[in-house]
Amino acid sequence: MDLSELGEFDIIARLTRGLESRPDVLLAVGDDAALLEPAPNSLLVATCDSQVEGIHFLRDVATPRNIGHKSLAVNLSDIAAMGAEPLWALVSLLLPRSLDGATLDGVYAGLRELAQRYSIALVGGNVTATSGPFTIDVTLLGRVAYGAAVTRSGGKPGDAILITGSLGGAAAGVLVATQRARNSEQAKLAPEMLQMATTKMAAPTPRVVEGQALAATRAVTAMADVSDGLLADLGHICVASHTGALIDARAVPLDEATVEIAEAYRRDPLELALSGGEDYELVCTVQPEHVADALAAVARVGGVAHVIGQLTDEREGLRLKHGDGTVDSLELRKQRGWDHFR
Amino acid sequence: MDLSELGEFDIIARLTRGLESRPDVLLAVGDDAALLEPAPNSLLVATCDSQVEGIHFLRDVATPRNIGHKSLAVNLSDIAAMGAEPLWALVSLLLPRSLDGATLDGVYAGLRELAQRYSIALVGGNVTATSGPFTIDVTLLGRVAYGAAVTRSGGKPGDAILITGSLGGAAAGVLVATQRARNSEQAKLAPEMLQMATTKMAAPTPRVVEGQALAATRAVTAMADVSDGLLADLGHICVASHTGALIDARAVPLDEATVEIAEAYRRDPLELALSGGEDYELVCTVQPEHVADALAAVARVGGVAHVIGQLTDEREGLRLKHGDGTVDSLELRKQRGWDHFR
Repeated sequence: MDLSELGEFDIIARLTRGLESRPDVLLAVGDDAALLEPAPNSLLVATCDSQVEGIHFLRDVATPRNIGHKSLAVNLSDIAAMGAEPLWALVSLLLPRSLDGATLDGVYAGLRELAQRYSIALVGGNVTATSGPFTIDVTLLGRVAYGAAVTRSGGKPGDAILITGSLGGAAAGVLVATQRARNSEQAKLAPEMLQMATTKMAAPTPRVVEGQALAATRAVTAMADVSDGLLADLGHICVASHTGALIDARAVPLDEATVEIAEAYRRDPLELALSGGEDYELVCTVQPEHVADALAAVARVGGVAHVIGQLTDEREGLRLKHGDGTVDSLELRKQRGWDHFR
Repeated sequence: MDLSELGEFDIIARLTRGLESRPDVLLAVGDDAALLEPAPNSLLVATCDSQVEGIHFLRDVATPRNIGHKSLAVNLSDIAAMGAEPLWALVSLLLPRSLDGATLDGVYAGLRELAQRYSIALVGGNVTATSGPFTIDVTLLGRVAYGAAVTRSGGKPGDAILITGSLGGAAAGVLVATQRARNSEQAKLAPEMLQMATTKMAAPTPRVVEGQALAATRAVTAMADVSDGLLADLGHICVASHTGALIDARAVPLDEATVEIAEAYRRDPLELALSGGEDYELVCTVQPEHVADALAAVARVGGVAHVIGQLTDEREGLRLKHGDGTVDSLELRKQRGWDHFR
């Protein structure tokens, strides 16, 4: 059986089955990042993620700076989802021999610019040639106060579900980038709409300050970043927390560009928001009595968050309540969003 | 200018120029691993390295277990060269869709087997599809006592140069693997010789316990692992320590397989030992009055080390003393060993 018959999650399950651990590993594979204890009362957060040309970015859509930016941003998003502070990055580059030096300089400029914004030091890495596509693999290490790390597993029925920013923009950007020639409707879209969606796809803003602000309230029971799509990532929280969830479709924040682009391409904007993925927003669950605190904490750091539903009993699964009052039941295991192997 | 015109070291220099740091970074790019301070009086060691099919391994030579083993071994070697204890690994896999599940299982079995031997926990990672070659990128984190970390920069003229194990085996393995059809001399070689060289190339033993034992003597002034070749890696120590070095050619340890294979292929075994690379031995410099302590420390953990020369004044550069008493001066900057981009 080759890997195209297995899915990404099956491959991970196969590789991580029965993995041995150590007492200084508080959390290993299966959350946004690992939680490690390098010294007593010290918590280290570690994650890695790679960006492969042709799979995660296209060089005729993303600028070199975008590529560098995104390679760090996707890792920052995982650190943010733990409520942690990013500190140090290691960067592994796989370079086709035909890549030009100016492109590489641009990629590194984008990466360094984002690292500087969060005072992250680039402390290591390696460079190798490859016969395959240009690939950047980043490992990011961070720190979080003891007891302040937010995993996916602490949600309780009744907790409110919050989402930062808005959803669907990255998926709208993919529509614009990949279906350009096929859709004359695009001509009617304002250039700033196209630019907004392209930026959301190619250079997402990780919610680092929002994640730390939310964790600091100590009212956030579970958190994940939206990389696979809201349904998939909220589904991970539900599985880890042994809960269900009820999402209010009307409350899901869509930005203007997503709505307009979806309409131009005859797509449902809600579908882009729920299943599109790659928005790198944070979805978290909050004790119901502290929802106002959590929303205020995000606002204080210049962000925005919305309540989009609540956790329910596990037996109710993942459900979506539409504007007309009807409720759809969504089978958890099917909400896997984007899977590179299928 | 494309990357084939730049070398690996030029690319790294270009990427790391003017890099910003943080007060909790004690050592960043330029040594075997980074030294970080996650909490007061706590030292974290971090490194990453990738293995790319067709560049670092060939699937018709290396078994899946070899590939997994080597992907962790090369990182263990960097942690060993700091005198540190390996703790946690993150594994990033780039998988061609055509890869079969059994190969992947074998790779992971080799990786997990080596992790277990050193009580390393695999704490994170990611899996993505690629249109290019099968690639494994490993980030390894470790720990070292404050003041016990060994960098490349502490060598002093007069220090003895020690090497663990023997050299040239990996280069002999490459000869056997890549020139099989072309050389009828191979038929005369004993199968155990071929096997020894192939194992040294495809599944090297990182000198983890030797590195820790050497560091614990507190007499080791500089250390590096032999990945690019002895001349190149000792050259890195000389540059960082502002010294020269005089190597005694007769003292360089060659194993029997290397000598026999070199002769069969009409190659100089000393050349394989000095410039071959990928042996993953440790080269270190030791205060002259503590050489016996250092050799004994390695022996106590079941290893072996030899004195192969001494550090000299910087102006004398890197020199090689032959058996007949003649001395060759080797220009440091040309001794770069294996460079993937040239």
